Amino acid sequence: MKIVAFRQNSQPGVGLVSPDLQSVQPFDLSQAQRELGALPVIEMLARGEALPALLATVALGDVQIIAPIPKPRRNIFCVGKNYFAHAREFAGSGFDSSAKAGEDIPADPIYFTKVPESVVGPGAAIEMPVASDAIDYEAELTVIIGRGGKGIAAKDAMAHVWGYTIINDVTARDWQSRHKQWLLGKSFDTFCPMGPWLVSADECDGTKTSVRCYVNGEERQNASTTDLIFDIPKLIETLSAGITLYPGDIIATGTPVGVGIGFKPPKYLKSGDVVRVEIDGIGTLENPVK
Amino acid sequence: MKIVAFRQNSQPGVGLVSPDLQSVQPFDLSQAQRELGALPVIEMLARGEALPALLATVALGDVQIIAPIPKPRRNIFCVGKNYFAHAREFAGSGFDSSAKAGEDIPADPIYFTKVPESVVGPGAAIEMPVASDAIDYEAELTVIIGRGGKGIAAKDAMAHVWGYTIINDVTARDWQSRHKQWLLGKSFDTFCPMGPWLVSADECDGTKTSVRCYVNGEERQNASTTDLIFDIPKLIETLSAGITLYPGDIIATGTPVGVGIGFKPPKYLKSGDVVRVEIDGIGTLENPVK
Repeated sequence: MKIVAFRQNSQPGVGLVSPDLQSVQPFDLSQAQRELGALPVIEMLARGEALPALLATVALGDVQIIAPIPKPRRNIFCVGKNYFAHAREFAGSGFDSSAKAGEDIPADPIYFTKVPESVVGPGAAIEMPVASDAIDYEAELTVIIGRGGKGIAAKDAMAHVWGYTIINDVTARDWQSRHKQWLLGKSFDTFCPMGPWLVSADECDGTKTSVRCYVNGEERQNASTTDLIFDIPKLIETLSAGITLYPGDIIATGTPVGVGIGFKPPKYLKSGDVVRVEIDGIGTLENPVK
Repeated sequence: MKIVAFRQNSQPGVGLVSPDLQSVQPFDLSQAQRELGALPVIEMLARGEALPALLATVALGDVQIIAPIPKPRRNIFCVGKNYFAHAREFAGSGFDSSAKAGEDIPADPIYFTKVPESVVGPGAAIEMPVASDAIDYEAELTVIIGRGGKGIAAKDAMAHVWGYTIINDVTARDWQSRHKQWLLGKSFDTFCPMGPWLVSADECDGTKTSVRCYVNGEERQNASTTDLIFDIPKLIETLSAGITLYPGDIIATGTPVGVGIGFKPPKYLKSGDVVRVEIDGIGTLENPVK
């Protein structure tokens, strides 16, 4: 199934996307639940409950699609340098002047976070901040946790994956570098476009799909998630070793080669650009840069 | 004022601590509000509303004090290496083998986060994880944001500080080092003791107070917040440059010299230890290690 969050006449809604992607059947939920997008539905399913009742079908063209989880309950977990070719381009960019030779490829997963309030939906503007002009895109397959848990072994991890969505892990490269830990450079307002919806794991095999990113129609990134350094089971095992995971937790799995800082000179985003991320089995997430 | 969160007969409560620290006057709030501890009160005050009505006084000895903000709305902002002597001890510990000479003292604030669910209250056990035996304490003055905002200049920043509390930024040093970004090593369940309550800025000058930490009664840390490398106004200016701050946001300002990894050999925590943090003007936060 695909779960979409939306606004219609300024009211929040969340529902099932039709197979032809033309319409949505809204769930019968309270206003407070609908404000949280797909999150309450993921929580219900994790508790073993049935899907909520469905209301009358609405054309997707008549609603404004927003981020499927517009208000995450905690920061978004993100993984850095998790594709071999990207890890090498990053090392080659001179970003990390203190990195030693041979340290291009991480030996263990690198986890950082983006604040929940950085999330915006499809079509929403990525706002160029006053504080930086080194703004970069990062197309990422994103895991949505279903059943929570702690100490989840890699062999059991896929049973905890409810499904997937797309995140563009927008980054201020100068802040990311200057402040050593990446939170600040990753968390500026509007720096987490997410969408267009959640897709359940039975409809999309995130372990074998294709991630592409285009800026103004020019292909910048194109890779398979089979090239992840740390695969989804390993990522969940590592994250849950000390931290209890909950339904609706969000894990952005890292970005492929082809980010702006990898070019010489760097191809950073500028006002007027349009960034489009496509992941097979999920859909398209497109955002203008303002 | 001091705002304390507590449980009494397994029901949540939040209220004003009496000047003699012997009793609490609970606020008349809904169950949903009381579950969030002091957070709804900070939000009310930030909106310019009056304090909620007060109920009958209860002896503090008759309630279980819990973390003042037991369920933060997003990850806790934390600052790394923010006291000169601690930055040097950290460099000297061999923690960061890739650090270059002369890079001991950060040129810019280092921000990372702890997940909200790592928070525990006074007296609650810090649980030794299966995954690490290099568990360290870090006593920290912690800022509670009152009025939110973005692009807050340092000269205006103190007007956005509602007050203070104490956090023990418990850390798995091996995870902190191995995974490069610090989230994982900082976010294990129970790794964020917080309390004993919130103290408003008119009752405590966080910019000039004393932070101490004892393990089994042995003094390990003792410093003044006047020794911060980046003071509170600078920390707020930096954080809010790209990220909108909200009432109830939590900023742990960094720890003084004297952490376990700074000793040779390191003095890590072990089961049965008791960690006590004292900050003048706030109080005492004591937690056993289990």
